[in-house]
Amino acid sequence: MKLQGQEEYEASSAHENVSAGELESDHGPSHSPGSSSETDSRELGVCTDPPLFIQLNELLGWPEALEWRETGRWMLFEEKLEVDAGRWSAPHVPTLALPSLQHLRSLLVKGLVLLDCPARNLLELVEQVIRVESLSPELRGQLQALLLQRPQHHIQTRTWPCWGSTPPKKVPHNENVPLKEQHQNPLRQKLPPEAEVATVLAGELGFLPQPLGAFVRLRDPVVLGTLTEVPLPSRFFCLLLGPAMPGRGYHEMGRAAAVLLSDPQFQWSVRRASNLHDLLAALDAFLEEVTVLPPGRWDPTARILPPKCLSSQHKRSLSRKREVEGFSTRRMAGAEDRRGPGPQVPCPELQRTGRLFGGLVQDVNRKASWYTTDFLDALHPQCFSAVLYIYLATVTNAITFGGLLGDATDGAQGVLESFLGTAVAGAAFCLLAGQPLTILSSTGPVLVFERLLFSFSRDHNLDYLPFRLWVGIWVATFCLVLVATEASVLVRYFTRFTEEGFCALISFIFIYDALGKMVNLTHAYPIQRPGFPGYGCFCQYPDPQGNESQWATTKQKNRDDILSMDLGLVNASLLPPSECTQQGGQPRGPGCHTVPDIAFFSLLLFLTSFFFATAFKHVKTSSFFPSVVRKVLSDFSSVLAILLGCGLDAFLGLATPKLTVPTEFKPTLPGRGWLVSPFGANPWWLSVAAALPALLLTILIFMDQQITAVILNRAEYKLQKGAGFHLDLFCVAVLILLTSALGLPWYVSATVISLAHMDSLRRESRVCAPGEAPSFLGIREQRLTGLVVFILTGFSIFLAPVLKFIPMPVLYGIFLYMGVAALSSIQFVKRVQLLLMPAKHQPDLMLLRHVPLNRVHLFTAIQLVCLGLLWIIKSTPAAIIFPLMLLGLVGVRKALEWFFSPQELLWLDELMPEEERSISEKGLEPEQSFGGDESQDSELMYQPKVPEINISVN
Amino acid sequence: MKLQGQEEYEASSAHENVSAGELESDHGPSHSPGSSSETDSRELGVCTDPPLFIQLNELLGWPEALEWRETGRWMLFEEKLEVDAGRWSAPHVPTLALPSLQHLRSLLVKGLVLLDCPARNLLELVEQVIRVESLSPELRGQLQALLLQRPQHHIQTRTWPCWGSTPPKKVPHNENVPLKEQHQNPLRQKLPPEAEVATVLAGELGFLPQPLGAFVRLRDPVVLGTLTEVPLPSRFFCLLLGPAMPGRGYHEMGRAAAVLLSDPQFQWSVRRASNLHDLLAALDAFLEEVTVLPPGRWDPTARILPPKCLSSQHKRSLSRKREVEGFSTRRMAGAEDRRGPGPQVPCPELQRTGRLFGGLVQDVNRKASWYTTDFLDALHPQCFSAVLYIYLATVTNAITFGGLLGDATDGAQGVLESFLGTAVAGAAFCLLAGQPLTILSSTGPVLVFERLLFSFSRDHNLDYLPFRLWVGIWVATFCLVLVATEASVLVRYFTRFTEEGFCALISFIFIYDALGKMVNLTHAYPIQRPGFPGYGCFCQYPDPQGNESQWATTKQKNRDDILSMDLGLVNASLLPPSECTQQGGQPRGPGCHTVPDIAFFSLLLFLTSFFFATAFKHVKTSSFFPSVVRKVLSDFSSVLAILLGCGLDAFLGLATPKLTVPTEFKPTLPGRGWLVSPFGANPWWLSVAAALPALLLTILIFMDQQITAVILNRAEYKLQKGAGFHLDLFCVAVLILLTSALGLPWYVSATVISLAHMDSLRRESRVCAPGEAPSFLGIREQRLTGLVVFILTGFSIFLAPVLKFIPMPVLYGIFLYMGVAALSSIQFVKRVQLLLMPAKHQPDLMLLRHVPLNRVHLFTAIQLVCLGLLWIIKSTPAAIIFPLMLLGLVGVRKALEWFFSPQELLWLDELMPEEERSISEKGLEPEQSFGGDESQDSELMYQPKVPEINISVN
Repeated sequence: MKLQGQEEYEASSAHENVSAGELESDHGPSHSPGSSSETDSRELGVCTDPPLFIQLNELLGWPEALEWRETGRWMLFEEKLEVDAGRWSAPHVPTLALPSLQHLRSLLVKGLVLLDCPARNLLELVEQVIRVESLSPELRGQLQALLLQRPQHHIQTRTWPCWGSTPPKKVPHNENVPLKEQHQNPLRQKLPPEAEVATVLAGELGFLPQPLGAFVRLRDPVVLGTLTEVPLPSRFFCLLLGPAMPGRGYHEMGRAAAVLLSDPQFQWSVRRASNLHDLLAALDAFLEEVTVLPPGRWDPTARILPPKCLSSQHKRSLSRKREVEGFSTRRMAGAEDRRGPGPQVPCPELQRTGRLFGGLVQDVNRKASWYTTDFLDALHPQCFSAVLYIYLATVTNAITFGGLLGDATDGAQGVLESFLGTAVAGAAFCLLAGQPLTILSSTGPVLVFERLLFSFSRDHNLDYLPFRLWVGIWVATFCLVLVATEASVLVRYFTRFTEEGFCALISFIFIYDALGKMVNLTHAYPIQRPGFPGYGCFCQYPDPQGNESQWATTKQKNRDDILSMDLGLVNASLLPPSECTQQGGQPRGPGCHTVPDIAFFSLLLFLTSFFFATAFKHVKTSSFFPSVVRKVLSDFSSVLAILLGCGLDAFLGLATPKLTVPTEFKPTLPGRGWLVSPFGANPWWLSVAAALPALLLTILIFMDQQITAVILNRAEYKLQKGAGFHLDLFCVAVLILLTSALGLPWYVSATVISLAHMDSLRRESRVCAPGEAPSFLGIREQRLTGLVVFILTGFSIFLAPVLKFIPMPVLYGIFLYMGVAALSSIQFVKRVQLLLMPAKHQPDLMLLRHVPLNRVHLFTAIQLVCLGLLWIIKSTPAAIIFPLMLLGLVGVRKALEWFFSPQELLWLDELMPEEERSISEKGLEPEQSFGGDESQDSELMYQPKVPEINISVN
Repeated sequence: MKLQGQEEYEASSAHENVSAGELESDHGPSHSPGSSSETDSRELGVCTDPPLFIQLNELLGWPEALEWRETGRWMLFEEKLEVDAGRWSAPHVPTLALPSLQHLRSLLVKGLVLLDCPARNLLELVEQVIRVESLSPELRGQLQALLLQRPQHHIQTRTWPCWGSTPPKKVPHNENVPLKEQHQNPLRQKLPPEAEVATVLAGELGFLPQPLGAFVRLRDPVVLGTLTEVPLPSRFFCLLLGPAMPGRGYHEMGRAAAVLLSDPQFQWSVRRASNLHDLLAALDAFLEEVTVLPPGRWDPTARILPPKCLSSQHKRSLSRKREVEGFSTRRMAGAEDRRGPGPQVPCPELQRTGRLFGGLVQDVNRKASWYTTDFLDALHPQCFSAVLYIYLATVTNAITFGGLLGDATDGAQGVLESFLGTAVAGAAFCLLAGQPLTILSSTGPVLVFERLLFSFSRDHNLDYLPFRLWVGIWVATFCLVLVATEASVLVRYFTRFTEEGFCALISFIFIYDALGKMVNLTHAYPIQRPGFPGYGCFCQYPDPQGNESQWATTKQKNRDDILSMDLGLVNASLLPPSECTQQGGQPRGPGCHTVPDIAFFSLLLFLTSFFFATAFKHVKTSSFFPSVVRKVLSDFSSVLAILLGCGLDAFLGLATPKLTVPTEFKPTLPGRGWLVSPFGANPWWLSVAAALPALLLTILIFMDQQITAVILNRAEYKLQKGAGFHLDLFCVAVLILLTSALGLPWYVSATVISLAHMDSLRRESRVCAPGEAPSFLGIREQRLTGLVVFILTGFSIFLAPVLKFIPMPVLYGIFLYMGVAALSSIQFVKRVQLLLMPAKHQPDLMLLRHVPLNRVHLFTAIQLVCLGLLWIIKSTPAAIIFPLMLLGLVGVRKALEWFFSPQELLWLDELMPEEERSISEKGLEPEQSFGGDESQDSELMYQPKVPEINISVN
């Protein structure tokens, strides 16, 4: 059953995610001749064959009105023609009945197999096929006429909003060249130009005395006129006709032939087959590998949706190799299949050189060689849309964080500083950093720290900005030390446990603060309960006699005045407080300071912006609207939610609290210049004492920056130009020095927005078969998009007059949304949810297949306790030391090794460097020895690891 | 390949939804010996065999530590032991590799097959198995010891909240009787007592010179000690051992054997097999029917969730019958498979007798014979929970509709009338009606009509209640005529088109009204914008001198008074309006009539009750919490949402508008007695003119009542005691007369609450295999639950003092929820959604497989236009004639026959009686003739038709 050349195939090196059906044709302006995916293709040897499009033409209408009609087509998946509805079904996994494959096999054995047939058009082909058969001349003529008859194709025209498709038109059949509609077939765009076609013709033909089967491989592929839906050269031709058969025998047999031909390994074999025996061997090899569903437990007519991730050809050939060579699967499986959630191979950039600044020097050298292409590679239209998207996201971020910073620091900094700082720091980073795709931003952890630092300095009557400058100076110094000692390699000790603790704490702080701010609002604008003596407010005038008479005569028409007179009030009116003050009066009474309706309206605005931001974000996965619209709504969810909130506020025109925006270009804090004075009102020793909070901030910045950097430089993004961990940290240090001196916010790499940046620069294969997701080719790595984004952000300072219309509750809503979104992205939350779920309803998570539920719950409980402790610390006056506690999580994680086995930690977390070493020494044998049939774990594990940690909360 | 007895099996009469694996054991106190499901079981002949539980014991740990461990189990679906995690996987559809089945077959051919083995315990069985083999005595001994070794079972203990399961304990192996843990196995509860066990033992045993296969059928099933997880008698025993094999050969072979044994047809055959040949034939028959998934397009390790609906055994045997007898599937398929959405067989109760009151007499006779059992059948604990559930739903309904009615009729009726009417009408109906499971309720259409009637009478200065009495008298008369002429049979002309139009219009009115009422609230409690002169409100005292000094001295501590004095006001204070009036003063000023914060707070309450009612309803399908909690939250969603709204309102204590509740037991309208006077202030001729609106109301009541009745009496509810369409309408007519005379609301059958009533009385099979949904046995048809519910509702009049705490915005929110829920339940809305969906993302609906998309859209557009016209009529002064227009929908539907083919209407709608006739004459041939492979439509079509029309909106 083994084919020649199969060994070569099986010997291919281990690599995943290479579907043999990959139809990549858009390699774009790639500067990476040795890109991994191409290498694989060559090694696997499968992708060098052109992809195959298969169609089934069925003979219908026996005996009265014979006609050929295309009723099915295959690339990766099956599409079936819904005859009544006149549309192609959604692509689905083809299912076959076993007998149809067996019938096909026996028909091929008895039938005609022509390999390397020299026919140059349909007529020659048909003559070849019918000549060889033992048919009477009369039948031969009938058959020839029938086979030359033009088939009906259902060619779907592209229309939107999908008002159906035009029914196939009957044009009188003429010559042997493809029709216009064939050329205009939109399917043509989905097929790479080198694709070939295989046609299966099947049907009941009563006048044939016995079934007629023929399989033809053309020596030179030719376009067979109107036979095929798309005018591409045909390589294979399969004919299955015969007298009446029970059921839909020929239809099923035709489907079986088409499904066979759509299998990459069968294709590979049949292209190289030299005789019938090879063909049958390929069919038998196919049968060896099919999956069988028992009858009665599965409805054979149900359509299975295409799986999100196909079984890789590599795995398939490997599993066969094992079987053939008698490998014990148990031994192998663990080491391989664990790759999904298991220890990641560390980036080469995270190996210690052992020299002072060795890493930094390496980084600079590596990045310098790409510097020119970093600008040339940006010359692609995709970069324009990326700039627009990231610009809007950055500005939204600058507004939100600026507003929050203004709140947190009592106006020591504000929106203007946020814009300026973002523009300066971001642009500088894009020009100089190791990973220019990173977008620098104010992030949650730093904001939280800054708020604590401000409260601390206020409590101790310190001059904030000078104190902050010294903190910045120390932070820059400490970071420089970290760069010099190549401390970035320690990032590997930050496992998911630490990341999740970090992210969850910051998210909780966001959520708590957002809600807290709304509660504060209701104190500032109290709700008026019945019986609450807050109704009345007089306007009292200082001069009882003089003013009254004069004023009463000049403003007779004013209703308030009439009322005042009516009431017999001599020195008071009912003017609203603001007008009263204007008129020279003085508002008196308990109702003067309450503004009604503001509290509830603010709550409404808050909920509106939160819910709409969430809803817009989720539009992406809905099935309404074309994907472009969904993408826009989802990408700009925050902007749209803010605009909606502003619109609602403007419509009702209530005096809700608004964003404070300076009217001119000067620092928000009145009376300071752009440069912060180094001491201000502080004693000199504070510049030394600032080293202590600086140490805490350094921990925070190091964790925040480096965890983000690791996420951005993950292997699945296929970055070609390498990372620059040390260089990035160096740049961050310099920028912290700069922003501290100017009194601007501090910046580090932001996970979410940087990932969005990378995502908007993805290169994907343009053509893909129906049901197949486009394959990811890489990212346009360059410095220009980021640079342009930050230059535009700088110019956006002129937007200031517009920003003062943004109500604060709307920003708090966005703030809440950020916290909730970040929280819901981490696995920890999923495990907390498991606590509330009966075992029966728990999702089929890989970790639940491998770790006992009570161990999972124990791990979650430990995380919850750690978070609780962090929260308690955060609520005490010692809150400012929380970065130290975050670092303490690494220690807790280390201690967990006493309670959990490496295998459990492998599934619940990642491994620390020492554990990786120990596990690779021992292997995974002990746990594997019974029944640990890893090979039964589904391909879910092979899915690229999604960047689930949103460490920066932005 | 054909087995003896198979003909008998295949000759079984056509019937669907009978899964051969059905494990019904709880037939409850059924009074229906001829129940259809039992008949089928007998006819099919399969269900008479006891169900089989299969477990796979795998030999692990070769060569050091051999032990047997149960690694898989099957009833309907497969459950796999996750060894690492120590839990059973979720049930899933088993998938096999084809070679494993072939290896199993060849092992059986070479191995030992013992049919009707007389062994009485495990020892005897093992001796039998090893004696026959050509093994050396030494090996035999080793093998015997091994086979008698106690296997490890993973027995899951029931704990919640699922803190994992206790790991299997190792108790020293002793005797041949089952262990305590086996008896305590919760799985035991899921298996019917008559179930039998099959055990497959498989594994690698290096010392065996060649593979050893044995298949044993025990003559008398015996409990094999500790061999099986559950202490049930074993019937089959399969042994698959041998030297090392590539891959997990024995594991896969063991699974193959287990899956085979779990197949009902294989079971049937193997129970009757008399030799190896029969066994192999059964295996081959199994292979004939398997579904094959091609490799590379499907990950063989992915777990497929159990399908919602299993391929019925009937269909399976029928398809084989066709194949065997050479039937043309095309001819047959249409007529059969169309049963799902196609023409329903009309109820026998809807056949005309042709005599005056003939239908009514028939109904009375039919129901009289069941009258005693109608009370005896209620003696089941399930009825208690049904009463609680339906009572709460009814009271909620009475409150909501009472509140709305009070709103709509300016207090001519109110909550008290609603309670009283519901209790009286409901109880009477339950005692006397044809379908006592029906819950009578005020429904949307009648409420809408009543509102229009009230506006009409107000506009023409009529005395409402007397006018309404005459309308009621006429309605009763017209209904009597309809009963006499057996007009109920016309209900078959109300197809889904009409029902959807009806339901959508009423839902839109609900939604519009709910929103409209909230807008009105903001007019009643205006929002105070800045500059709006609504701040001030003085309290002015009539007597400038006398009162002031006295009052000022007595209430010195009051802050307002101090302020007043401070301001130099002599005859005014700043007391809130209510207190001012109490003090004898007079509130003056523009701010006296505005209550701040109420508008936005009402909006918040409205949104809260709407969103929480929706969210609670959806909890049912979430995976959190045990099913009991989810069911409670979902069932009582409206009650909980109202309670939540009340709590929020009480917490803040604002003066939101509340439900008006009379303080004593007398009609809401002041000054009227319980009996409405027949003329009041109206002219005498109005009693004749009332016939006109009565005609309209009759149409509405007839449509509402009969459409609901048809839904409730659908065949899928398996009602045994028959329907009573004419009797029900008669009862409704009498009750309308009664309620009109007492000035109570009008009542008809309410769809949703009646369905909920039936649902709470479902009889379901208690035992069901993992992954299988419990099968539906019928409904406890009786009169007692309804009666008790309405008696309790009557006593709930004493709840009145509590009801006045319910804020109206909360009720409006529930009102909105009802409208939205009703709207989202109809297919029309799904088709409207299709308009917004790109073809690629459209769900795989059956109708989209059979009707071209543009035809679907055309049908939807026509419905939209009809709805638009109805809405326009509803907005004109002629709104009251809208029932006539609803009836007009029947005409529009008739006209649609000109534009759509019967096949299209069959899928988009239902057929009218004439169309049914024409289609059954012509057959469905013309459309079927090419490729209309109905047999490929999935079993989705066989799903019981869900009651998707919520015609009553309640």
